[in-house]
Amino acid sequence: MNDIDSVLLTDLYELTMLEAWHAEDANEVASFEFFVRRLPSSRNFLMAAGLEQVIQYLETLHFSAADLSMLEATGRFSAPFLASLEDLHFTGTVEAMPEGTAFFDDEPILRITAPMREAQLVESRVMNLLHYQTLVASKAARVVLAAAGKEVVDFGLRRAHGAEAGLLSARASYLAGFAGTATQLAGGLWGIPTFGTMAHSYVQAHHSELEAFERFARSQPRNATLLLDTYDTEAAARKVVELGRRLARDGIAIRGVRLDSGDLAAHATQVRAILDEGGMHDTTIFASGNLDEYRLRDLMECGAPIDGFGVGTRMNTSADAPYLDCAYKLVEYAGEPRRKRSEGKATLPGCKQVFRRRDAAGRIEEDCLALACETLEGAPLLGTVMRDGQRCALPALDELRAHAARELASLPARLRGLNPAQPFRAIRSAPLEALVARMDRAAEVC
Amino acid sequence: MNDIDSVLLTDLYELTMLEAWHAEDANEVASFEFFVRRLPSSRNFLMAAGLEQVIQYLETLHFSAADLSMLEATGRFSAPFLASLEDLHFTGTVEAMPEGTAFFDDEPILRITAPMREAQLVESRVMNLLHYQTLVASKAARVVLAAAGKEVVDFGLRRAHGAEAGLLSARASYLAGFAGTATQLAGGLWGIPTFGTMAHSYVQAHHSELEAFERFARSQPRNATLLLDTYDTEAAARKVVELGRRLARDGIAIRGVRLDSGDLAAHATQVRAILDEGGMHDTTIFASGNLDEYRLRDLMECGAPIDGFGVGTRMNTSADAPYLDCAYKLVEYAGEPRRKRSEGKATLPGCKQVFRRRDAAGRIEEDCLALACETLEGAPLLGTVMRDGQRCALPALDELRAHAARELASLPARLRGLNPAQPFRAIRSAPLEALVARMDRAAEVC
Repeated sequence: MNDIDSVLLTDLYELTMLEAWHAEDANEVASFEFFVRRLPSSRNFLMAAGLEQVIQYLETLHFSAADLSMLEATGRFSAPFLASLEDLHFTGTVEAMPEGTAFFDDEPILRITAPMREAQLVESRVMNLLHYQTLVASKAARVVLAAAGKEVVDFGLRRAHGAEAGLLSARASYLAGFAGTATQLAGGLWGIPTFGTMAHSYVQAHHSELEAFERFARSQPRNATLLLDTYDTEAAARKVVELGRRLARDGIAIRGVRLDSGDLAAHATQVRAILDEGGMHDTTIFASGNLDEYRLRDLMECGAPIDGFGVGTRMNTSADAPYLDCAYKLVEYAGEPRRKRSEGKATLPGCKQVFRRRDAAGRIEEDCLALACETLEGAPLLGTVMRDGQRCALPALDELRAHAARELASLPARLRGLNPAQPFRAIRSAPLEALVARMDRAAEVC
Repeated sequence: MNDIDSVLLTDLYELTMLEAWHAEDANEVASFEFFVRRLPSSRNFLMAAGLEQVIQYLETLHFSAADLSMLEATGRFSAPFLASLEDLHFTGTVEAMPEGTAFFDDEPILRITAPMREAQLVESRVMNLLHYQTLVASKAARVVLAAAGKEVVDFGLRRAHGAEAGLLSARASYLAGFAGTATQLAGGLWGIPTFGTMAHSYVQAHHSELEAFERFARSQPRNATLLLDTYDTEAAARKVVELGRRLARDGIAIRGVRLDSGDLAAHATQVRAILDEGGMHDTTIFASGNLDEYRLRDLMECGAPIDGFGVGTRMNTSADAPYLDCAYKLVEYAGEPRRKRSEGKATLPGCKQVFRRRDAAGRIEEDCLALACETLEGAPLLGTVMRDGQRCALPALDELRAHAARELASLPARLRGLNPAQPFRAIRSAPLEALVARMDRAAEVC
């Protein structure tokens, strides 16, 4: 599956439209904006993510010889058109919100301005990249808020939707405030801290649970987290205490234990008592198993003595809202604003900017959606990240993560809760409203 | 993102367990089975998929020099352990149900039998691959049933969870009976038919809708499907008729039109009437936009004159059930059956087989979950697909697709409906039940 970097990871219609543009010898400058039409009902805010991968994609965009052969083999495209693809590269400008920025309905988080053929071709993959990481960062941010400062680790590779989802969800959740991931490759690619414990199979394969615990702890003398629920959680905790005393003589400390089934709060309380009675106050309790922000909130509210959480499937599939109603729409072509008026899916014309006003404490007060040429009060959220096909200097992942943490802290209090709040929606500037009205009037007389 | 073929696309704990096994110099033969504990409430059956990618992964499993450097750089692993990984390959046996097979709760669809370190290491990626394609094939099969013979095409790359999900959902949905995909690369990789129309941006960028339609149709004289809902659907249909007359003189036929918003049934009825009045009886109507099996059923039931459907996001995110409660569990080690007894997550010990009995018409009557060494009435569903690390001859994708179609036809009638039916559950053989009881008794006296 190492073909995923091919430019042919796109919808056929991008190519047929390119061929039509080629046939009519047209390629004026186009601006497309990516936005989410309406937030899912279970989200009070979204968090922008995936820009780094979009830029990497645009920087390296090209048709390889293998790509062109594959297209030729379809028999669907003309030779002159295929020849025109040989030197196609991305030469445009990209404006975007920094990753980690909180955003709301209809606010563009990215605009691509480039000759039409380039700006059109990249639609499918740009959407694919921005949609998924934004989806996951937005879900993970809720988990981080619910964890109220406790450590949360991405455990979700196995049920992520494919390899790239496994990797990118590790990145997006780290951006949103997770402490790290279990996915080794994500650690290697992006310097994200990795966490690991042990599986039930390791316990099952040994003659006794105690033997498995001891073997593992001696093999990982600094890092052992022992899994307690293969047979009987509290009995396992007592074995940990017995083992802990023995290993202490050899200078080995058992770092933590993990609970993965049953009533996590009840087990954690009992296990904490057993560990404490055994003098193992520094051995932490880590919980996993079907966790999400709602369960974390419940566990935190009942005061369960859990030190950290492994959150997987429900986070990296964004299980309660597994997709966003996002779009990548033409807003300007050949210097003229453009508008789509499809029922329920009308778009706002023109290149736009979001101006965000904050109170003295830095808390978000109001967003105004305006034309990009306007100058309004507040900070403009979209900045230039590529110019003439070249990447601008961008913050590193840890800086983006710090930005994301500040964004979460600056959300209005009602939006930080897990339950649906009164939606936060951007107001629109008078010039933007006037442009919409003017275009609708023009359409009526057509 | 071309790193996804790295063996380090795995959970850290697989590697720490490997190191522990290495430290204790143990590597007996282990058998792990992949199964779904319980079907989602909105699924009456699941369809096995993803085996081909699992086999490709196992065939090529190795640690590259870059992988080993990445692990060394973590400072977490011992030099002798890292050296032991240099010549690690998969040498085991795989038994599995053919892709496209319908299956139910607790039925293993794959078993890996190999030295423990190999069988353990592959857990994360094997689950990742089987889970996602099975998830999508199971959802897509419902869409195919709801479409009742009408053509359905995968339109979902843009909101699939990353690149691999986009590709693999094209494959899994084709396996389940979709006619093809919009994703060009999936066409090139697996010979899946590709479909494409045009985007709103193409219409918006032209001076008039009619001009856009004509340009596009002349560029795609055999294949043009024109998108009608950028401004006013019925007005656009009348332009198609006007254009159709003109293009007919040049020998160009407009193949189809697409509706993408609003009340699809009402628009289809009006558009069909406009096209028919204009003599364009052969121009088909294709519908897209937030479709899934429930909407298809409604459109079919009200008799909407729609010839085909583009189904994307809700299919390839399996939006109403975005993950399966699947597991990859140790069932035998060193010749002894193994059982995990975690609360609510207990597993069935021993290597197992599923024997399926059918009636005279071939319809599924009963599944029996048994030990692999048993011989029972009915056809065994798991067969050997890899032996000693080598792939056995396997059916091509089109044969698997035909198998999937037969499976759908052979489902009990109640399971073919979209609403939750009384669950179909395998019975268990007496020897399997006896083994469970024996292991639980043995555990009690421990």
